[in-house]
Amino acid sequence: MYTKGLHIMATFKVDNTALLSNYAPFKELVNNLIITHQLSNVGDTYHSFPEFGFTANVCLTESHLSIHTWPEYGLATFDVFLSNFKNDNSQKVTQIFEAVKTFFNAEVEQYNAIER
Amino acid sequence: MYTKGLHIMATFKVDNTALLSNYAPFKELVNNLIITHQLSNVGDTYHSFPEFGFTANVCLTESHLSIHTWPEYGLATFDVFLSNFKNDNSQKVTQIFEAVKTFFNAEVEQYNAIER
Repeated sequence: MYTKGLHIMATFKVDNTALLSNYAPFKELVNNLIITHQLSNVGDTYHSFPEFGFTANVCLTESHLSIHTWPEYGLATFDVFLSNFKNDNSQKVTQIFEAVKTFFNAEVEQYNAIER
Repeated sequence: MYTKGLHIMATFKVDNTALLSNYAPFKELVNNLIITHQLSNVGDTYHSFPEFGFTANVCLTESHLSIHTWPEYGLATFDVFLSNFKNDNSQKVTQIFEAVKTFFNAEVEQYNAIER
């Protein structure tokens, strides 16, 4: 049976625009979270925009992570979705969301959690 | 000002499991949609699982597309999110969702649309 996974979407308000401008620290965080939570990265893209911000997608065997940053507005939209095909990963989704929120020292401007 | 973009998430019920098993036709569709809607692909991952299905993430300057397929259950979870930073892309999001639904000849088992 297909068991629905948890998808958390958040808009973060971030004062530290350096963290929204350069993807290297975020990429390091994500790579550490993937190890910690025993996920599998099957391909990722990290792309810096010429003027402001970056965008990234991390394709996991368990589903995906994504971020789009807007340093000029102090905002980032973040997604983490893990399927529950082999294990119940819902707690990992929440833990990853919390870790990313903490990393950015973010205020959560919008939060949506969907089981799908 | 940051203008919220539309993010559509759908779970598709699909009878044609061949389309859920081999990513090549879906990749061709996505590449055509990117041209049609004048979007910019800055990096994508298409990954086939050894047993069943595939997963894909397409990182766009305008945000992202993703799919995870479960041919063994006749299901796919699909996302399209385009920001409205430079243009109002909401109509494109709806058109891409409809095109993917048509491609799979899918029944929509779950649908969520979020402005974010």
